[in-house]
Amino acid sequence: SNSIAEVVVASDPLPSWNESSTKQQIIDFVTSTTTTGSPDFVPEADRIAVFDNDGTLWAEQPMYFQLIYAVDFIKKEASKHPDWQTQEPFKSVLSGDLSAVMKGGEKALLEMLMVSHAGMTTEEFGKSVNSWLQTATHPKTGKAYSQMIYQPMLELLEYLRANGYKTFIVSGGGIDFLRVFAEKVYGIPPYQVIGSSIKAKYDVVEGQPIITKLPEINFIDDKEGKPIAIHLHIGKRPVFAAGNSDGDYAMLEYTSKGDGPRFGMIIHHTDSLREYAYDRDSPIGRLEKGLDNAPMFNWSIVDMKTDWKVIFPFD
Amino acid sequence: SNSIAEVVVASDPLPSWNESSTKQQIIDFVTSTTTTGSPDFVPEADRIAVFDNDGTLWAEQPMYFQLIYAVDFIKKEASKHPDWQTQEPFKSVLSGDLSAVMKGGEKALLEMLMVSHAGMTTEEFGKSVNSWLQTATHPKTGKAYSQMIYQPMLELLEYLRANGYKTFIVSGGGIDFLRVFAEKVYGIPPYQVIGSSIKAKYDVVEGQPIITKLPEINFIDDKEGKPIAIHLHIGKRPVFAAGNSDGDYAMLEYTSKGDGPRFGMIIHHTDSLREYAYDRDSPIGRLEKGLDNAPMFNWSIVDMKTDWKVIFPFD
Ligand SMILES: [Ca+2]
Ligand SMILES: [Ca+2]
Repeated sequence: SNSIAEVVVASDPLPSWNESSTKQQIIDFVTSTTTTGSPDFVPEADRIAVFDNDGTLWAEQPMYFQLIYAVDFIKKEASKHPDWQTQEPFKSVLSGDLSAVMKGGEKALLEMLMVSHAGMTTEEFGKSVNSWLQTATHPKTGKAYSQMIYQPMLELLEYLRANGYKTFIVSGGGIDFLRVFAEKVYGIPPYQVIGSSIKAKYDVVEGQPIITKLPEINFIDDKEGKPIAIHLHIGKRPVFAAGNSDGDYAMLEYTSKGDGPRFGMIIHHTDSLREYAYDRDSPIGRLEKGLDNAPMFNWSIVDMKTDWKVIFPFD
Repeated sequence: SNSIAEVVVASDPLPSWNESSTKQQIIDFVTSTTTTGSPDFVPEADRIAVFDNDGTLWAEQPMYFQLIYAVDFIKKEASKHPDWQTQEPFKSVLSGDLSAVMKGGEKALLEMLMVSHAGMTTEEFGKSVNSWLQTATHPKTGKAYSQMIYQPMLELLEYLRANGYKTFIVSGGGIDFLRVFAEKVYGIPPYQVIGSSIKAKYDVVEGQPIITKLPEINFIDDKEGKPIAIHLHIGKRPVFAAGNSDGDYAMLEYTSKGDGPRFGMIIHHTDSLREYAYDRDSPIGRLEKGLDNAPMFNWSIVDMKTDWKVIFPFD
């Protein structure tokens, strides 16, 4: 029978990755952790790989897509809420003045999220997101948001799974929002999706159980929240982690400091032509500490411009 | 190639179950939901089965085993806490007067749980539970608690998994406590274990990431909390649910009211000789509403005395 290394040679598992040292590091890691007898062998039960979503698996510029969903939801529902015409942050959302919305800070964002994510059943919310995903398009590419995913990362997810890794999303985005597309788009089932959440309640209405989303934060899955959520939902320390911003620093650190072989990956947005270029000064996906300390942890920095042959599936 | 039905006939997947209608209902359900072309076929991605733990997968008398762990922990640590000699509920725990502890109600139980579950890292807690599991024994059988598991349910878990079902634990017990033994004892990996939890925090101490358990409730996975936790952790409505008390009523109802084929199972403790007999009046594992409404939902009541050939693996 063929060893995994031979199969890898026979057919390139990462065709959208250029032949760089980054690609070689990934293949070396997967080969050494899955080859029986290798000193770095990891039992299949411990092959846990975690991925941030915004800016790691799909794009996040010019604004988090979930926030664009909230804006579009508010516009769609405005006729039912005449008070929004005069009430911030809705007034600015409706007049298209997003910089004014941003000036409202976290409170304004929270109000937008609560209005567009709470006060409905989980089924209603899922349907609403799904219908938005089928009609809304990205302002720069004109493509559906579910196509704004990184082809090289899809190949990486598939490559890891083909080698016995379980792939999880660990995102600051909303867990119910992510689950609407994660299975179809990334091949990641809902029970392997971890995200931020609002509280919910269970009721039986006319004999039918419903779960209603409440306007109250349950958990923010960002920064130090990521290892906490990994512990709560997965219960094992990952051996592979990928992120793109300092919001992923704790998750990468938690992963890398485990015993035995570990892989930490940072997606560095360096391609202003094919995607966007941003890092230290970006309000979205700010990456500073991660870049500075990557050598100390031996994290692989993926240079999107030079490491990736294509970025999006439609490229 | 053989159909699943033929394989089932060829070798009994549930040898510890008597040839009763309950056993036949299980086999009929698994066969009809996994046979291609069957009107009740369920795609593999939707084959989610959830199991309560205490009283459903392992015993819960004369007291929840996790509470026995807390008692033993307090006794073991007492020399470091001289104040416990005079302070309730610890004083009564140390003098062995558990009925006095119970009179302290929820507050006393919570204090016992916090002292024995918080203020330590997740790794320290895991080691402590593991070492307890290897030494403590059940007062009635003299066996280790990890042997007080129901052999027929082990077979059911295995049978479901062999047919493409994912098996999850959804327990009122502590999620970190359950995970210490769930993988080894039930074959259920930590990311398929859902339970009650206390809050936690992430720190880096001398370069090493640690997660510390905090003395504050995060989530109680009981009653209406069970469907909420299923939604949060699994994100799909189960098609199969098993429980043993009214704490499982909402989970069973949520499962049964979904579209398409559904299986709800209630373990009825009817065997005072081989195990324990209790239901409507029991302070532990009280089962009243579930018994009354089982016919309405078409739930299968497992009569432990007549449906199970053996109860424990050591029988
Ligand atoms: Ca990100
Ligand atoms: Ca129970």
